[in-house]
Amino acid sequence: MKFPRHLTPSGPQGSELLARERQQATFNPTDLSYFLYGKEHLERQSRLLALIEHDPVFDKSKRYYSSREERLRHALGKEKRLVELMMEHRWAYTDISVAEYLIDESGPFTLHRAMFIPTLQGQCDEQQRRKFLDRALNYEIIGCYAQTELGHGSNVQGIETTATYLPETREFELHSPTLTASKWWIGSLGIAATHAVVVARLITQGRDYGPHTFVVPIRSLDDHRPLPGITVGDVGPKFGVNTIDNGYLLFDHYRIPHDHMLAKYARVTPEGGEYVKPPNAKLGYGTMIYVRASIVRGVGLYLARAATIATRYAAVRRQFADEQGAGAGEMQVINYTTLQHRLFPAIAQAYALLITGQWMMQMYEEFTQRLQDGNLEMLADIHASSSGLKSLTSNIAIAGTETCRRACGGHGFSAFSGLTTFYADVLPNVTWEGDNYILTQQTTRYLLKTFRSVV
Amino acid sequence: MKFPRHLTPSGPQGSELLARERQQATFNPTDLSYFLYGKEHLERQSRLLALIEHDPVFDKSKRYYSSREERLRHALGKEKRLVELMMEHRWAYTDISVAEYLIDESGPFTLHRAMFIPTLQGQCDEQQRRKFLDRALNYEIIGCYAQTELGHGSNVQGIETTATYLPETREFELHSPTLTASKWWIGSLGIAATHAVVVARLITQGRDYGPHTFVVPIRSLDDHRPLPGITVGDVGPKFGVNTIDNGYLLFDHYRIPHDHMLAKYARVTPEGGEYVKPPNAKLGYGTMIYVRASIVRGVGLYLARAATIATRYAAVRRQFADEQGAGAGEMQVINYTTLQHRLFPAIAQAYALLITGQWMMQMYEEFTQRLQDGNLEMLADIHASSSGLKSLTSNIAIAGTETCRRACGGHGFSAFSGLTTFYADVLPNVTWEGDNYILTQQTTRYLLKTFRSVV
Repeated sequence: MKFPRHLTPSGPQGSELLARERQQATFNPTDLSYFLYGKEHLERQSRLLALIEHDPVFDKSKRYYSSREERLRHALGKEKRLVELMMEHRWAYTDISVAEYLIDESGPFTLHRAMFIPTLQGQCDEQQRRKFLDRALNYEIIGCYAQTELGHGSNVQGIETTATYLPETREFELHSPTLTASKWWIGSLGIAATHAVVVARLITQGRDYGPHTFVVPIRSLDDHRPLPGITVGDVGPKFGVNTIDNGYLLFDHYRIPHDHMLAKYARVTPEGGEYVKPPNAKLGYGTMIYVRASIVRGVGLYLARAATIATRYAAVRRQFADEQGAGAGEMQVINYTTLQHRLFPAIAQAYALLITGQWMMQMYEEFTQRLQDGNLEMLADIHASSSGLKSLTSNIAIAGTETCRRACGGHGFSAFSGLTTFYADVLPNVTWEGDNYILTQQTTRYLLKTFRSVV
Repeated sequence: MKFPRHLTPSGPQGSELLARERQQATFNPTDLSYFLYGKEHLERQSRLLALIEHDPVFDKSKRYYSSREERLRHALGKEKRLVELMMEHRWAYTDISVAEYLIDESGPFTLHRAMFIPTLQGQCDEQQRRKFLDRALNYEIIGCYAQTELGHGSNVQGIETTATYLPETREFELHSPTLTASKWWIGSLGIAATHAVVVARLITQGRDYGPHTFVVPIRSLDDHRPLPGITVGDVGPKFGVNTIDNGYLLFDHYRIPHDHMLAKYARVTPEGGEYVKPPNAKLGYGTMIYVRASIVRGVGLYLARAATIATRYAAVRRQFADEQGAGAGEMQVINYTTLQHRLFPAIAQAYALLITGQWMMQMYEEFTQRLQDGNLEMLADIHASSSGLKSLTSNIAIAGTETCRRACGGHGFSAFSGLTTFYADVLPNVTWEGDNYILTQQTTRYLLKTFRSVV
């Protein structure tokens, strides 16, 4: 059956309406783009887009039709091709993240890049950098960051997985004593990871020193099967981000060598198993601060795209007679104050979030600069700022994305609007990397403390 | 790889915690169930559950894993079995709706039951009841209600599909003059329907009388292919309700006999094509009022289930040390005021919505009773009440369902929580059967008018 292609929408056509609206702009859109993203970034984006847009492996047309298994399979193919392009063109870190943004679908290597590598960069000693980080950067090993457990999310101090030091063999024995100790929700773990940074309670000389980080091989580098003593798999389908393989992981008295404990800050002496504590207990927070700072920018990009789609649609969609208008046509819905009242704040919020995101990343860069000189001054402030802003901006972006979706009426419910995927994919930001309710309380506590110290 | 089944959660076990919470109830849950649903309804539900729960065609275990095509295929199988059970056990209308609630997944026949049959019941003359309604009730024909067009939702008066009366052959010619005239979003149309109630502009004696309803055969009863002159298909994947086959429909000068115009109220004389107007222009609103009244009750059931899941989870989930507690265990999250503050209003709202839903259905029954005696007194009031309550209750239910989902933290993002499906399936209620923003304005207008007439 052929769709009757000779038909057009009743006039005026959408393209005319959009052109008319755009002519009324009081600013130069290119200038605004440069202000928001920078010329260098936009040129980089164009260059990368030209490279990937016609590659069939990055085809987006089947996303809404496939089962989760098909989508994961396709996502693995994309990851492979992305690594090839990366190596072929010697991409910088920024190139990779821009390419990922253009592909616009997280994959089984997303957390390898977003959490595994940054943790290794932050917490490896010199020897470990060669042993783990260099191989991770070359994709010889694929990793994930395994902190959350089935029964333990917000309260990291409550995790149950143990890493007991055995000085006689100079090994740590990892163990999951209960079901609630299962590592759970770990992105890139379900099917992709060969290694995991595991957060486990360090036990040495009979004493429990609480959560510390270990690099743990979990799947064979020969045939990718789980290693003996490891139980690993995918936690199943989710509301969104279904091309990420969030996984679970359990250890049955599983041993790793002494040098697999990340030792830049805290460590255990190989011979006697004596605990050497870190200069500052909060130094391990670096990865989390980085991830939260990235979320601030990331959620702004979701809202900006949602607002763009909804605004264009509102200019094209017409409904009810235009009583002030000349002709007998219907009114563009963008002219209704009831719609403006909903849509325009979302546009304003998108700008606010993008600019806040820039500011947050600048603050993070300044923090890491100073950290290299051993200066920890900014730690409390950046921890509170990134936590509070992660919570605030993700709440704003999610509510705004849904406002934009509803502003598109019925067509906003179609997967083809793009808005349903935005919503489902931006939504976990209220929960992951610190539940918003908890983070807001932490920031409040910091602000009250600061207030008391000043007054 | 085997999951280590000997492991249990760290104690106390969820079942113990739930039992302890339940022991503290100050009321009898059975009494409350009777109050909310009625004993008759609950017994009916148990009887029907026993009949369907072990039937493999109603298996729910693959819902989250299948592609949309697989899900639609499975949903068609369920519809077929449901019709068989219906006929075998001579189910009453209430039995069917309870069975559908238990199956908890809309299907390709949902709109046949929810819109096609009620419209025929409301708008057929005696002859048409035999010709269309009886066959629809026997599933000899499957129908849908085709009002919304690609370019026309809230403004029903703006629809473009025409039905021009041709007295020489005593036929109506249906035509879609533009792309925006395509019927769009019509549930049960994508793959299932053989017939459609089509809302089209009646044109007779050269005059346009605006939207009227026609019964239109669209697919062959022999091989289910679209009939010549018909373009029909599925509009594609959506945020939720993906087992409903929302479809599109276009007519190319497609003719139907004179007696296919639903003629209980308005009609056209066969010979000259003279228009006979209905006694009251609003009589055709009956179906819409019924559907909106059903939504009020339906959304309450979504929220009630979401609140139940979240409350049970909050009793079982423990996080952070219990500082007031005796042992060293973590605190049940239901004991945190920050969680109670979110969850308890959702529970209260669920009760409010269920009771409002009962009241709304009673009002609707009273209205239809009086209508049979030609009494239209309640029309304006029930129109305003059902519109306003549809908007209010769907907004409350959607926000509450999401509150419950977030209260489950990360596990609320898993499809296995059930909450993600509830959210995606309850969400279209803000848009369909009248966009909430429009409905609220209509109700406001009615209230202001009433106020002015009283003061």
